[in-house]
Amino acid sequence: MLSVDQSRELADRLDIVDVAIRYATALDTKNWLLLNEVFTPNGALAAGPIGEVNGPTAIAAAVARVLEGVTTQHLNANHIVSVTGDSATHNSYLVARHVRPEMSGTNWYVVAGTYSDRLVRTEQGWRIAHRRLDVTWTDGNPDAHPGAAPPG
Amino acid sequence: MLSVDQSRELADRLDIVDVAIRYATALDTKNWLLLNEVFTPNGALAAGPIGEVNGPTAIAAAVARVLEGVTTQHLNANHIVSVTGDSATHNSYLVARHVRPEMSGTNWYVVAGTYSDRLVRTEQGWRIAHRRLDVTWTDGNPDAHPGAAPPG
Amino acid sequence: MLSVDQSRELADRLDIVDVAIRYATALDTKNWLLLNEVFTPNGALAAGPIGEVNGPTAIAAAVARVLEGVTTQHLNANHIVSVTGDSATHNSYLVARHVRPEMSGTNWYVVAGTYSDRLVRTEQGWRIAHRRLDVTWTDGNPDAHPGAAPPG
Repeated sequence: MLSVDQSRELADRLDIVDVAIRYATALDTKNWLLLNEVFTPNGALAAGPIGEVNGPTAIAAAVARVLEGVTTQHLNANHIVSVTGDSATHNSYLVARHVRPEMSGTNWYVVAGTYSDRLVRTEQGWRIAHRRLDVTWTDGNPDAHPGAAPPG
Repeated sequence: MLSVDQSRELADRLDIVDVAIRYATALDTKNWLLLNEVFTPNGALAAGPIGEVNGPTAIAAAVARVLEGVTTQHLNANHIVSVTGDSATHNSYLVARHVRPEMSGTNWYVVAGTYSDRLVRTEQGWRIAHRRLDVTWTDGNPDAHPGAAPPG
Repeated sequence: MLSVDQSRELADRLDIVDVAIRYATALDTKNWLLLNEVFTPNGALAAGPIGEVNGPTAIAAAVARVLEGVTTQHLNANHIVSVTGDSATHNSYLVARHVRPEMSGTNWYVVAGTYSDRLVRTEQGWRIAHRRLDVTWTDGNPDAHPGAAPPG
């Protein structure tokens, strides 16, 4: 039979994947308040042109700005979870489709890469303390996702 | 240690994702009888041009018709499961590639979106009582998947 | 409450998906030694033009050769696990993007398909005894991934 720790780790692994996916849900439904259930109060997002932003409110503002008018689907896969007590790491693959329905011609842009997350167990459940996105490949028309361009 | 309910919920979450993926397997292998292990006897599929169809046999007929001669890969990700006793909800992302190998030019069409499922626990395991597909984006040549077009 | 066997099966299912994803991680980070933690000492990879290769060292050599100079993202989804004692089967969908950053024009090639794995429980954890890739569709420029072409 599984030990106490092993049983808890199974639940932790599923819960951590849930938190990671919640970030995609927040962005794709533009439910910015949901980011409060993703990041710790000081949680950081480090994603390319956005730079590093701290706290769910600032992250929501930064992400909302670059995704304004953009339909998105942030597909997550290849989840890898490692739990050590009340800390954890999580990596996953991202293929994020950005579409501007009103554009003519190629109206989409894909950003694909790897999320590397550090999480902590809180009284509200697992939360991301730090999320970094490393881009692997892109495709399509960068003008369909101007926010993806380096500020400049 | 996990409580009785928590342990059971872990198994339920994995089993529910299995059922959701089984639908993709049924379509992609054109194993229509497998849909009997996906939907309840009155289970409904509500997917765009197909409209709402009830029961595994009618669903099989409707899906078989639109996928005739089409090679498909229904990729599922971002699974979110919520269990309440003998009922559950499940959402997942879909990126469905449709290919007509014999076509010249662009011979593929992608339909991407979100499945929203309601499931019930039965004596045979979890089954989908209602599945709805909301399309997020499409790409490619619609002629490669005529079944995806609204009925005229 | 879950039985001893059921609890163990939950852990097995997550562990087996981990091993399957580890293969993608090994390839995408070009960490060839990691393949020792994926395959049994005699484990086989049967993947198209590579043919069937046995053992982590030979697999690493074969894969390293076809991926030289190629940036990759092997996205895995639709995991299906079936455990019987110390043996298991695992299927998953693959969408593998291959990019040659230095190429002009269309510099990418996608190979998509299904992995069919047989695994065994070892003292080091679950390991793949046999992995077969069946290709479902491809897209892009084959010249961006010459290793994908059948040997001449």
